[in-house]
Amino acid sequence: MLFDKISIIGVGLIGASFALASKQHGISRIVSGYGRNEANLKRAQGMKIIDNYSLSLRDLSKDADLIVLCSPVGTFLDLVKDLSPCLEEGTIITDVGSVKGSLVYELEDAMPGGAHFVGSHPIKGNEKSGIDAASGSLFQGATCIVTPTEKTDRAALKRVTETWEIFGSRVLSLTPELHDRILSSVSHLPHIIAYALVNTVDDINSEFLRYSGSGFIDTTRIAMSSPEIWRDICMLNRDNISHHIKIFKQELDHIAEFLHTLDKEALQREFGRARSLRKTLNKNGYNQTA
Amino acid sequence: MLFDKISIIGVGLIGASFALASKQHGISRIVSGYGRNEANLKRAQGMKIIDNYSLSLRDLSKDADLIVLCSPVGTFLDLVKDLSPCLEEGTIITDVGSVKGSLVYELEDAMPGGAHFVGSHPIKGNEKSGIDAASGSLFQGATCIVTPTEKTDRAALKRVTETWEIFGSRVLSLTPELHDRILSSVSHLPHIIAYALVNTVDDINSEFLRYSGSGFIDTTRIAMSSPEIWRDICMLNRDNISHHIKIFKQELDHIAEFLHTLDKEALQREFGRARSLRKTLNKNGYNQTA
Repeated sequence: MLFDKISIIGVGLIGASFALASKQHGISRIVSGYGRNEANLKRAQGMKIIDNYSLSLRDLSKDADLIVLCSPVGTFLDLVKDLSPCLEEGTIITDVGSVKGSLVYELEDAMPGGAHFVGSHPIKGNEKSGIDAASGSLFQGATCIVTPTEKTDRAALKRVTETWEIFGSRVLSLTPELHDRILSSVSHLPHIIAYALVNTVDDINSEFLRYSGSGFIDTTRIAMSSPEIWRDICMLNRDNISHHIKIFKQELDHIAEFLHTLDKEALQREFGRARSLRKTLNKNGYNQTA
Repeated sequence: MLFDKISIIGVGLIGASFALASKQHGISRIVSGYGRNEANLKRAQGMKIIDNYSLSLRDLSKDADLIVLCSPVGTFLDLVKDLSPCLEEGTIITDVGSVKGSLVYELEDAMPGGAHFVGSHPIKGNEKSGIDAASGSLFQGATCIVTPTEKTDRAALKRVTETWEIFGSRVLSLTPELHDRILSSVSHLPHIIAYALVNTVDDINSEFLRYSGSGFIDTTRIAMSSPEIWRDICMLNRDNISHHIKIFKQELDHIAEFLHTLDKEALQREFGRARSLRKTLNKNGYNQTA
């Protein structure tokens, strides 16, 4: 077994899926849960997602050799600061947050000596939330990004990487800064666009939504994502996102200009460029040639 | 049987699906195909999608009591002008185009006396194209909009409506102008956004696409749609689309402003508004309460 006790902070879709995957692959003797909602933790225990739970960070961290932050990314820093005094020698903390950047350095700084932080981000999850949507195979076939820094303990990085690989993920390593630039473009901007598109139809006439087809449905699926979680992600990665919104608006301006000047060839060329690129992705999002 | 001979102009995904549905539901004795690519028509005949085909509009229109325009919307007006001299008394022409507006009036004006045009638009289809993706159940559960005008023959409208209903579609009637305003918001704008989003990531760094997950994949699925078809649709509905691009950009500006001013509450409110609305739609896009 890779671990003796894994403690999951935040037993929602991702946390519960991490717990289930840990049990399915037998990587930990015990999986514990922590959260604020005792009813949810009790249900998770009843569903055998976690072995036990605690409402105290001190109990949770006791004997844990891996702690996984699965709560909204905006809570991580306070959690690690609260955990810090109770962490035991050798404990690894990792996370599943969608933003890294400066947060990773702040989390590292908040860790006591002898315990290790390793940033990770499984690019998986969906507009659903909660333990009922959890699955031990959620990370199967997904990409998981780890974001080591110069300070990262190499042995801890190796164990976290191994965990994701056992869960069936393809693990890639990026700096926290590059992670955030990439995720802004392929995840955070698309979420903002999906939210803004639904609101645009609402602005025009919400009754028009009755005429939406599968194109609109797919394009806006991620607009069903949690507003709280995405508020935090967008705020923490706001510089990249603001820059990418500008580039996206320029793309829209090109198209508007082609419509205005009746430039059919340019419009078709723009659409064709997007189509060719998009066709290189498969359903998991990987380059098929990668 | 509703018809003796249905002639399909343009045997691609939608044309072939219309042909298959016609045969499955036994609404016509014969289904003929017309197109420029004889190899495709021959294959469609071999696959029993159509009974026979013709490369001549005159042959195609002979004895046809229903002609369905399934070629790109930019070809409709020339086709109807070419068909006009050979149309027989009582022939109905309908279409499956995604733009109506002034085109419907132009098509009406190009029809000879005694033959009838009825605009229709099944809100269905996807990023796929070609006869291999065709299905007789494609229109099952879809919304189909008919766009009668003051000139529309009521008996012809009734037969076209009945056809879509037999195919399993929910038929709604709109003016051509309202159709275009609605479709601009829930279909044409989303296509432009999907194309522009892929191109934005290309502008930033096309290598970043390797890190895309299911959110990006769904949001940009319709960017795989035919550039030729969507060029025509966007050009024909450019006034509505240009107006809606402006409203969408204002939505993006609001979000960018909230990021800039660190207004977490406003950001969450915007996301929450979109989420609530989006949750009222089911996988077919209907209001669940409708």
